[in-house]
Amino acid sequence: MLVVIALGGNALLRRGEPLTAENQRANVKRAATAIAEVIGAGHRVVVCHGNGPQVGLLALQSEAYKPEEAHPLDVLGAQTEGMIGYIIEQELENALAGRKRVATLLTQVEVDAGDPAFRNPTKPIGPVYSGTKAEKLARQRGWNIAADGTGYRRVVASPLPKHIPDVSVIKLLVEQNVIVICGGGGGIPVIRRTDGSLIGIEAVIDKDRVAGLLARELGAEVLLMLTDVDAVYRDWGGSSQAPIDKISAGELRPEEFPAGSMGPKIEAARDFVIQTGGCAGIGSLEDAIDIIEGRRGTLVFHRPGLASLSLDRP
Amino acid sequence: MLVVIALGGNALLRRGEPLTAENQRANVKRAATAIAEVIGAGHRVVVCHGNGPQVGLLALQSEAYKPEEAHPLDVLGAQTEGMIGYIIEQELENALAGRKRVATLLTQVEVDAGDPAFRNPTKPIGPVYSGTKAEKLARQRGWNIAADGTGYRRVVASPLPKHIPDVSVIKLLVEQNVIVICGGGGGIPVIRRTDGSLIGIEAVIDKDRVAGLLARELGAEVLLMLTDVDAVYRDWGGSSQAPIDKISAGELRPEEFPAGSMGPKIEAARDFVIQTGGCAGIGSLEDAIDIIEGRRGTLVFHRPGLASLSLDRP
Repeated sequence: MLVVIALGGNALLRRGEPLTAENQRANVKRAATAIAEVIGAGHRVVVCHGNGPQVGLLALQSEAYKPEEAHPLDVLGAQTEGMIGYIIEQELENALAGRKRVATLLTQVEVDAGDPAFRNPTKPIGPVYSGTKAEKLARQRGWNIAADGTGYRRVVASPLPKHIPDVSVIKLLVEQNVIVICGGGGGIPVIRRTDGSLIGIEAVIDKDRVAGLLARELGAEVLLMLTDVDAVYRDWGGSSQAPIDKISAGELRPEEFPAGSMGPKIEAARDFVIQTGGCAGIGSLEDAIDIIEGRRGTLVFHRPGLASLSLDRP
Repeated sequence: MLVVIALGGNALLRRGEPLTAENQRANVKRAATAIAEVIGAGHRVVVCHGNGPQVGLLALQSEAYKPEEAHPLDVLGAQTEGMIGYIIEQELENALAGRKRVATLLTQVEVDAGDPAFRNPTKPIGPVYSGTKAEKLARQRGWNIAADGTGYRRVVASPLPKHIPDVSVIKLLVEQNVIVICGGGGGIPVIRRTDGSLIGIEAVIDKDRVAGLLARELGAEVLLMLTDVDAVYRDWGGSSQAPIDKISAGELRPEEFPAGSMGPKIEAARDFVIQTGGCAGIGSLEDAIDIIEGRRGTLVFHRPGLASLSLDRP
């Protein structure tokens, strides 16, 4: 099967860890092992990944050196596709020991310039700050700030992905049995001008939404979202909290899940499954192959009897 | 014909210009127009580019924010492949107005860990400094510094490229009529460990050498190196200075040309032409198609009568 894998932030960096190349590489090694198991089971794979901490870091670095020459978010996003894509490609090639070719493609993703997200920024990037520090940065730099866990983070516009201009190139590589890393950081956000030309725009697109769009446009059978929780939970944090092992897309209510983290995954899973009849999996990075084979995590299927995967659990 | 184009630093930034996204984009637009003319004439094209100013800037940004978390040169090189590749891809797509697909591939390039360049750094990166400032930076940061024009720049190791592991993916795309941007900044320098795995190493590979290697491995007919001088000159700066319009590879003496700029181009041209029987062109960015068609710049051919291009000049 063709599996589109979305790697969450924890695949690249654990919360609170310094964002060094070494820490990213150590985390990516775990992700590469998990992805190599999926490939080893005979599946074709396309890998997307987040870039929240990284794009925030590059923005801070760019401001720290010469603020008057700081680069816009589309260019910084492209830089993170280079940085993160390189580390994932290298570690995945090492995990596969030459058994498959791996290619990393820069990926522009078209958004709508009129998307309401540009008036209401919600996507957290960069480090977590205390309230006092966050307020000061908001004043000094004109940032939008929002609560994130127990602290505060800069938030930027996160418009919906509309189209992936490079999808035919990605498809071409997948058909030739190449493992493709693309759509990194949700892709480089661009808008199409009235003359048909493309130009970057300041935003960060949600990687789960882009992975879902990519899975639909590529005709993938499975959309697999790997994160730092082992399943989707009913009543998360409540008295009746319980993991969901399988659920039909029609039963999913994205609004019942936290907006910043699980919400976009649920929405991407539901849209992909309803529109294609495929299957979506959500769970821990280490469990990738077990989620696909129905032993761990949460599987979202179209309706009972139509699930394209073995849903038998031990 | 298949033409591998190496874009020099001036295609991305004019000397002394601030390294903003706007300035890079304005210069890349000129490069995109020139490349689109080559494509319009019916040639297949692979584009490589330099990254000297950009990788130097990212190193400075990384140091300016949190020096203890600064990223190594291989990761910064990967970031510049994202930054520059994105701007070239977007402007080239705009110049082609959808007539061809363009893809940007991250490219690792294998070097030899024992390359003598690691003991004798020569490749200038980052901005030009005064002598006093350069000496201070060398002391503070342990940089190697060398004269560059009228000023001084940081220099890093520039080992010879040995192998491009992704060449089969590049070939696959070229055969499918995709314009490929790859080997940016000379590629991401990696070494192969004794267990066969790849790991990055701190260096910046010369983009003309990588373009030459790529042209050989892809079986290209033409290696075209675009820069800010309109031709190769005999006795550059001397009393008998004169442009060379055509010359056989056997007559070229790389050691007679400046080591930092024209030397690697002459060497790459000579090696490519002698090893493949193809043709190499050197000249101004704007003259790309005129160089290939023998009207401007310098053409290096194998021997009289064997040149694969029309060398008739008006």
